[in-house]
Amino acid sequence: MSGDFLALAQPGVQQLSPYVPGKPVDELARELGISPETIVKLASNENPMGASPRALAAINDALAELTRYPDGNGFALKSLLAERCDVQMDQVTLGNGSNDILELVARAYLAPGLNAVFSEHAFAVYPIVTQAVGAQARVVAAKAWGHDLPAMLAAIDCNTRVVFIANPNNPTGTWFDTDALNEFLQDVPPGVLVVLDEAYIEYADGGDLPDGLEFLSAYPNLLVSRTFSKAYGLAALRVGYSLSTAVVADVLNRVRQPFNVNSLALAAACAALQDTDYLAQSRRLNDAGMQQLQDGFQVLGLSWIASKGNFIALDLGQEAAPVYQGLLREGVIVRPVANYGMPNHLRITIGTPAENIRLLEALAKVLVRG
Amino acid sequence: MSGDFLALAQPGVQQLSPYVPGKPVDELARELGISPETIVKLASNENPMGASPRALAAINDALAELTRYPDGNGFALKSLLAERCDVQMDQVTLGNGSNDILELVARAYLAPGLNAVFSEHAFAVYPIVTQAVGAQARVVAAKAWGHDLPAMLAAIDCNTRVVFIANPNNPTGTWFDTDALNEFLQDVPPGVLVVLDEAYIEYADGGDLPDGLEFLSAYPNLLVSRTFSKAYGLAALRVGYSLSTAVVADVLNRVRQPFNVNSLALAAACAALQDTDYLAQSRRLNDAGMQQLQDGFQVLGLSWIASKGNFIALDLGQEAAPVYQGLLREGVIVRPVANYGMPNHLRITIGTPAENIRLLEALAKVLVRG
Repeated sequence: MSGDFLALAQPGVQQLSPYVPGKPVDELARELGISPETIVKLASNENPMGASPRALAAINDALAELTRYPDGNGFALKSLLAERCDVQMDQVTLGNGSNDILELVARAYLAPGLNAVFSEHAFAVYPIVTQAVGAQARVVAAKAWGHDLPAMLAAIDCNTRVVFIANPNNPTGTWFDTDALNEFLQDVPPGVLVVLDEAYIEYADGGDLPDGLEFLSAYPNLLVSRTFSKAYGLAALRVGYSLSTAVVADVLNRVRQPFNVNSLALAAACAALQDTDYLAQSRRLNDAGMQQLQDGFQVLGLSWIASKGNFIALDLGQEAAPVYQGLLREGVIVRPVANYGMPNHLRITIGTPAENIRLLEALAKVLVRG
Repeated sequence: MSGDFLALAQPGVQQLSPYVPGKPVDELARELGISPETIVKLASNENPMGASPRALAAINDALAELTRYPDGNGFALKSLLAERCDVQMDQVTLGNGSNDILELVARAYLAPGLNAVFSEHAFAVYPIVTQAVGAQARVVAAKAWGHDLPAMLAAIDCNTRVVFIANPNNPTGTWFDTDALNEFLQDVPPGVLVVLDEAYIEYADGGDLPDGLEFLSAYPNLLVSRTFSKAYGLAALRVGYSLSTAVVADVLNRVRQPFNVNSLALAAACAALQDTDYLAQSRRLNDAGMQQLQDGFQVLGLSWIASKGNFIALDLGQEAAPVYQGLLREGVIVRPVANYGMPNHLRITIGTPAENIRLLEALAKVLVRG
């Protein structure tokens, strides 16, 4: 047995390419030799408001117990979520971000010889968690940048155990409506777990975007995944959760690490969940910023994909990489999405009014220069 | 395909029994109808001092960026660790607690048909992470409660990919010396990864307990795992790390979640690592408490396993469960270890002088009552 620890790794692991996050502010500041404060980062779909004051206060209160292990069962947060989502506590699974939830699903239900179905242009973590356990990815061509649910249904075979769908989808911002979801869920075989990723659901204020929770009781093969990283403004702390049947939650809770969510994260999430003012303000800021960006894009003669998230995929009609680089030189970080099969697009997070103006001005400058 | 999501889970997952943590203070307070402040918890090998003031200050400074994702590469903490441990940065892997490191190893290198070797009475997470990926556990009988390294060597077969050894071991507190480790490492086949779990190493002040880092350059199949949860006093935050060859670190970094360690945890760990006063004080408090407890046990005519950790396995010479229950009624939580094959022992964390007295008095009371 040789000591080649790359060759000794599991085949799925050997072929893993790690997730590529947005470019960090500090890195760009070092490269440009400028102060981090002058840089605008609209690259990671982070909440542009400061944190919820209630979350900050809760963290402060929790500092007294820093030497103690977290509550591994997350009793307080699970109780609040169960009440808020109108489910039983044993239907809730907490994750170290919703990334953890997606990974728990893959580790519990996928393996070599089995497959997961998801859409082209879908969240990069779906292929990563599938690959990491050596399962096969069945990627279904998108339709007008969004999920083609009938085609995804047709892609399910006897080895499919999981379907990942996102509503709205990241990085496209596309969505499907209640009827489409209902038809899809009716036709998915009962032994296939449907993971409905609603990381951005809090930005969608009603309209024709369905609330996944309303389908839970009718479909025992449905799992709804959500996060505190976006509208709740706690990306630094890594808290996500899922709602499912108690059976699925029991399986995921066996697989998760006993203290996967840390104490400060648990405390902050409890407080953020109850800070309805903060959430409402997040939404208003996002609605206004979405309009502001679209107005600006229109002036610049640019098109984009209609979005229900806190971001927008801008279509440059040509390779976007040079524009991305040009924006970096202006101190504005956005997200290139060539690795999502979208080389002509840039994903831009909705910022504060001032940040949005900075982005639009920098974009105009870069485009004019050609 | 039926919708039985327990039967659909991977075989290893179906048979998982989750980790059993120490009884939470709040839970006992509810049961006894008393105030949490009156309860003494010596059940989870937590640091009995408050947190490092430097760690608290660092958390405070990091709160401004709560809406931002953590630095997924943990640049600052990895730099400090590399310097401190005299390794290159690409040899460091950060984990959401060292539990995460142990799990990453299992997910990267174990699978059905392969096995991991570890000792009887070893840390409960070794069997859990092995089982979770469907690999086989080869459990080797202990010798005088400690690792029987020659027997562990003999248990390695052609399907062994990982050996977990802990120095000192939890929950026994036992250790092996430099010569024993050296002989073991010399004989382990080069394709078997030796995970040397040094979660409690900071409590061992020299003596005959080896520093695993000194063996890294000679043995490319060695991985040393450490944690900020014990002597550094950050159990609430979940930060662990490993040092290995860059190849092994690269593999583990592919498997880990992109933001597995959160921002406040990263900031606090950087500060704690530099707070040498806190660490020295932790050690002194532990040395004094270890002596205090042993003196007390001697007065009570009890024996124990000699320990190099921040805990001690007390031998009651009879089933320990009734004593555990008696201590709970006195408001003192310790850890029963019957699930570690030690039904006559209780694992007791070294507390503050006052906590140690509470434990000894409660123990005397419970034993006298019989």
